Amino acid sequence: MITALAGGVGAARLLRGLVRVVAPTDVTAVVNTADDTELHGLHISPDLDTVTYTLAGMNDDERGWGLAGETWTVMENLERLGGETWFRLGDRDLATHLYRTQRLAEGATLSQVTSEITGALGVSVGLLPMSDDPVRTRLTLLDGPEVSFQEYFVGRRHAVAVKSVRFAGAESATAAPGVLTAIADAEVVVVCPSNPIVSIGPVLAVPGVTEALAGRRPEVVAVSPIIAGAALKGPADRLLAELGHEATVVGVARLYSDIVGTLVIDEADSALAGAVEACGVRCVVAPTVMHTPDHAAALASVLLDAGRPSGAARSLAR
Amino acid sequence: MITALAGGVGAARLLRGLVRVVAPTDVTAVVNTADDTELHGLHISPDLDTVTYTLAGMNDDERGWGLAGETWTVMENLERLGGETWFRLGDRDLATHLYRTQRLAEGATLSQVTSEITGALGVSVGLLPMSDDPVRTRLTLLDGPEVSFQEYFVGRRHAVAVKSVRFAGAESATAAPGVLTAIADAEVVVVCPSNPIVSIGPVLAVPGVTEALAGRRPEVVAVSPIIAGAALKGPADRLLAELGHEATVVGVARLYSDIVGTLVIDEADSALAGAVEACGVRCVVAPTVMHTPDHAAALASVLLDAGRPSGAARSLAR
Repeated sequence: MITALAGGVGAARLLRGLVRVVAPTDVTAVVNTADDTELHGLHISPDLDTVTYTLAGMNDDERGWGLAGETWTVMENLERLGGETWFRLGDRDLATHLYRTQRLAEGATLSQVTSEITGALGVSVGLLPMSDDPVRTRLTLLDGPEVSFQEYFVGRRHAVAVKSVRFAGAESATAAPGVLTAIADAEVVVVCPSNPIVSIGPVLAVPGVTEALAGRRPEVVAVSPIIAGAALKGPADRLLAELGHEATVVGVARLYSDIVGTLVIDEADSALAGAVEACGVRCVVAPTVMHTPDHAAALASVLLDAGRPSGAARSLAR
Repeated sequence: MITALAGGVGAARLLRGLVRVVAPTDVTAVVNTADDTELHGLHISPDLDTVTYTLAGMNDDERGWGLAGETWTVMENLERLGGETWFRLGDRDLATHLYRTQRLAEGATLSQVTSEITGALGVSVGLLPMSDDPVRTRLTLLDGPEVSFQEYFVGRRHAVAVKSVRFAGAESATAAPGVLTAIADAEVVVVCPSNPIVSIGPVLAVPGVTEALAGRRPEVVAVSPIIAGAALKGPADRLLAELGHEATVVGVARLYSDIVGTLVIDEADSALAGAVEACGVRCVVAPTVMHTPDHAAALASVLLDAGRPSGAARSLAR
């Protein structure tokens, strides 16, 4: 059994590779839900949906988010009414939000709804929201206001400086059923190349998760989302710097050093392998850019190899 | 100024005729909201939308409900997820529900939202929800359970016998801003050929509305939705009979006798004109089936004529 901590696009790509080298039913992904938002009365879970759509083969690889063959009739008509359309919700995607919202209103948990949606779409990886309780990322901008994640990420296109980040509700949240045992019982725990601050950060903030990971540290393998000092996508590099971390693989290693036994960094950063190991984290150098599912599968093999006891031993000897 | 009490399709057709003989800005429609429902987290106001879409020229005349050129992508995908699709919501229509739900969540009243939607769609008739407070039609079926209006009307295709009807929340509801003055100040008040029990009934149940109408009784003109003992559409005939009323124009006259000065009945019922007048209600016989907007305009002229003081006098002399 392999357990992965996941954000959105980067995690989805890695998982798509992972299920080429491990049976999908042997994979559990614990997914960030602190990006979840309520809009138009609908409960939207962007990271759960990105992972689900990608594993179902329904994602739009070219646009990089949402569903292939998507149409925009609802948004076009909402625009005509003068409604809020900055957060683009496609017609096909909206069905997921309608379904989730209705089921939650009926009393189902987010875990149950997630399992129903993945079941209906033929996804056999076990997807677990990090918590069934609401946890919401709030960012205080350098110029003053505290905003929600989607206001920052979509509304302001993450083009504003951030002073601090908190995960509202995290302290009182409970890890969703199965999350802590999925970490405790996994052969290898993979920390996907998602944003360490706002994608993996909220998962780690759920009570019990950090402790569970620390207890499995030798088998926990992370992939750095930072390559040559930059994020492939999104604001991870700027967020790290703005919050006082080094926007390099070394900064990532420091952030994760209590919970991660091995950090996989890209070949572009091979010169920093020693600095990573100086943080007390084993370092494996490999190609980490997932241009295709084949690249993702190769990266997944590296991760599994690094997280398995013999592999971990080997990694130090490289 | 002309004020109309309105349900859905029949009212929308009459209003489309009315605006051919009166300036749209001189028309106010007080619309039933007891059919409103929450589904998928969205606030749906079927009668307000039917009237709005029809007056905007956006309705699907052939199907008889919803929008022309409608698409069903969201429902198709919701079906794939195993979601509830018995209440069909088109993609274009959904935009209205998303808009309304978002604005209500932001604290706007249903009146405000209705005005925003009609404004955006170029409808210059003043549409007022009967109340900004929730009033919900509940029907106790002969075989036991109490159901919502949409469960009865759409879910069971109104093919089940009804024992009783109530309007939950009506007693504590307040008429929406402008409703009572629209009745008090109107030159003529038109009661549209909507279901007397479940479309006009809820409007009359809002505190103050029946009293306001009674005070204007000579100028209140209703069109019978029953023609030759049957409803053109929907369950009005069966509901009347099931609840102990006569499913004829005479039954309608008795129901409305406290508030309506004149009842317009179809030529098919001319033999019952005397029986209507025996209820203390003036009777005007005219073609009432609105095959086309021209027919609706002709009917509207009859109504205005009957409701204006001189016309009312003439009607008795016919």
